[in-house]
Amino acid sequence: MTATDPVANLQTLIRCPSVTPAEGGALSALDAMLSPLGFKVDKVKATEAGTPDIENLYARLGSDGPHLMFAGHTDVVPVGDEAAWTHPPFAAEISGGELFGRGAVDMKGGIACFVAAVSRYVEKHGNPKGSISLLITGDEEGPAINGTIKLLQWAAERGERWDACLVGEPTNPDTLGDMIKIGRRGSLSGRITVHGVQGHAAYPHLADNPVRGMLQLTSALMDPPFDNGTENFQPSNLEVTTIDVGNPATNVIPAKAAASFNIRFNDTWTADTLQAEIIRRLEAAAKNGALRPGREAVRYDIAWADRPSHVFLTRNNALIASLSSAVESIAGKAPKLSTTGGTSDARFIKDYCPVVEFGLVGQTMHMVDERVAVSDLETLTQIYETFIERWFANAGA
Amino acid sequence: MTATDPVANLQTLIRCPSVTPAEGGALSALDAMLSPLGFKVDKVKATEAGTPDIENLYARLGSDGPHLMFAGHTDVVPVGDEAAWTHPPFAAEISGGELFGRGAVDMKGGIACFVAAVSRYVEKHGNPKGSISLLITGDEEGPAINGTIKLLQWAAERGERWDACLVGEPTNPDTLGDMIKIGRRGSLSGRITVHGVQGHAAYPHLADNPVRGMLQLTSALMDPPFDNGTENFQPSNLEVTTIDVGNPATNVIPAKAAASFNIRFNDTWTADTLQAEIIRRLEAAAKNGALRPGREAVRYDIAWADRPSHVFLTRNNALIASLSSAVESIAGKAPKLSTTGGTSDARFIKDYCPVVEFGLVGQTMHMVDERVAVSDLETLTQIYETFIERWFANAGA
Repeated sequence: MTATDPVANLQTLIRCPSVTPAEGGALSALDAMLSPLGFKVDKVKATEAGTPDIENLYARLGSDGPHLMFAGHTDVVPVGDEAAWTHPPFAAEISGGELFGRGAVDMKGGIACFVAAVSRYVEKHGNPKGSISLLITGDEEGPAINGTIKLLQWAAERGERWDACLVGEPTNPDTLGDMIKIGRRGSLSGRITVHGVQGHAAYPHLADNPVRGMLQLTSALMDPPFDNGTENFQPSNLEVTTIDVGNPATNVIPAKAAASFNIRFNDTWTADTLQAEIIRRLEAAAKNGALRPGREAVRYDIAWADRPSHVFLTRNNALIASLSSAVESIAGKAPKLSTTGGTSDARFIKDYCPVVEFGLVGQTMHMVDERVAVSDLETLTQIYETFIERWFANAGA
Repeated sequence: MTATDPVANLQTLIRCPSVTPAEGGALSALDAMLSPLGFKVDKVKATEAGTPDIENLYARLGSDGPHLMFAGHTDVVPVGDEAAWTHPPFAAEISGGELFGRGAVDMKGGIACFVAAVSRYVEKHGNPKGSISLLITGDEEGPAINGTIKLLQWAAERGERWDACLVGEPTNPDTLGDMIKIGRRGSLSGRITVHGVQGHAAYPHLADNPVRGMLQLTSALMDPPFDNGTENFQPSNLEVTTIDVGNPATNVIPAKAAASFNIRFNDTWTADTLQAEIIRRLEAAAKNGALRPGREAVRYDIAWADRPSHVFLTRNNALIASLSSAVESIAGKAPKLSTTGGTSDARFIKDYCPVVEFGLVGQTMHMVDERVAVSDLETLTQIYETFIERWFANAGA
């Protein structure tokens, strides 16, 4: 009685309403699938003041190397407008060849397929010559403080070491097999406050409009581009995501203005060199007199958001080749090796072992009527099983 | 028993708590000063849906021309932090040679001095060979919808015509006699909304950040300057008074951004030509690709605020010379003839007759501890009396 059917596995997981930070029964259901296969399953609760307690799961089959980790999360984003769903978001109903439900592609579907793949692998080959682990968090869609980062620390402190990791996030833009992620850009956020002098709009010489300084600073952050991209990465890109003054009076020059920005950066930069470049731009723009002729330099503060995400690129050829060839064998096309898109928990895992990402098609993630083609679940299961076979063959060779 | 003492007049007026839109007894007190002098006094209530009802006053002495109008307001701005006042804001206490109270300089003080000046003039000369009117509103510090503009219409419909007007607003920056206002810049306000496409900060090509477009549009409004000033006016000046996006999520590109602006403009422009110039700048900036390479033009709306204030310059030499020479005779220095500062109700009066402005020192207006030097009240009364004498001499000549 093993969990070889990814559709049944996914229905079981979707029916656990594990909206972040709730466990919702999802990890217990996973335990019930893995334990019969011989996995040693640990539930790990992580806590931190000011954040919700989070249940996580670590399961290992085997005790020797080479050691392959599969990583993912069972928490899901809220359902949004539940009345707008064609099928209830936790019912896991199949209609027209598609399985509907929150988490169908992000990413209970990836977990369901990996569990099916391992089940089939063990049925066919017996236990692997090495170890397979699942590192599954309930805090990927939330603050990500009590999730993968702490679970990795917990495992590492117990002596766990890994040779490679596959993250099962939805990586394919349009069809299964489109894209493997072999790295991620970094992400850095900050908030600028420009200080001016409040006054009457009719007496601008007695005031100092912080909007003028803010225009200079934010324009300098967005132009020119930080770089033109690198061999493996898109150009770094900064967006000013908000500017807020909140002055309702048309005849009043306000006292201050605030803006937030986020930059997705490539391997031209580290978080440190990028912060230095941003400061250099701000300092130069602050002294620019274009919008503030005859004035002193713009007075501003900058506050960096906690914990930038660092850029990384996986260079493990055996890992990438095992996955890429498995995709090509089963899906019939060579996947693009990409570093595009947002961050994922791979940014934490890359500090422990080489990591790549491949999962379902992401088009409906976070949306009403999140759903997955039933046929994709079978295809992904076969890709994962083939990957496991080839990775152990490559790693053991 | 006439109101020849400006200090007593001002104390009476300050003790009427006429915080806009309340009449507070101030117009009745004024009636009690003017009627004994022979003024025919009318109280005129103005109403308009959505605004508070307002009491106004029109008083005329004499029935023939030439006809001199004095204009002002008895409403005052709120007291602010009442506990911070050295003397209660409606007590009109004198301390250290200064009279404290809300409205002391803006502008119950100017009214008190003009009433004293007329009283002395009539005591000395009898009724003028012509007419003197006071046009006093209770809606200058409020929306200014039920005030001077309607009172002028009301009087004009009854056949009232004026040859000149003196507005008693505080015009002096530092000392009494510094400055006469002989015109005012116009004022025009608008609000721009830039429409973008919401998206994830990691996928900027799928989104269109409206902050980029907003930076282009607002920068184009503030630079270059609209003009370099004219013979009688400062350069026109535009301030962006607020930019608001209100996006709390650092990883989200927002859907829209809004900004308001106000421009104080000189006689290089009319409101119409200025609106056309602003649209021209916005259109050019919308097509500029500096911050949005490869994109279509910025999509934006502009909404103009109701009723721009039109620029005007008074060119009546007799009026200006009468006032200027009166200031020089009493204060001992030639006042600067200026068009600086904000708007006043003179912007409405200029459609009926030539108008100039002269009053007290404005330094404490709208502030806690608004106050006036007792000696300035006597000086201003003498200036006003001398002005009345010279204006009738010039106008009758």
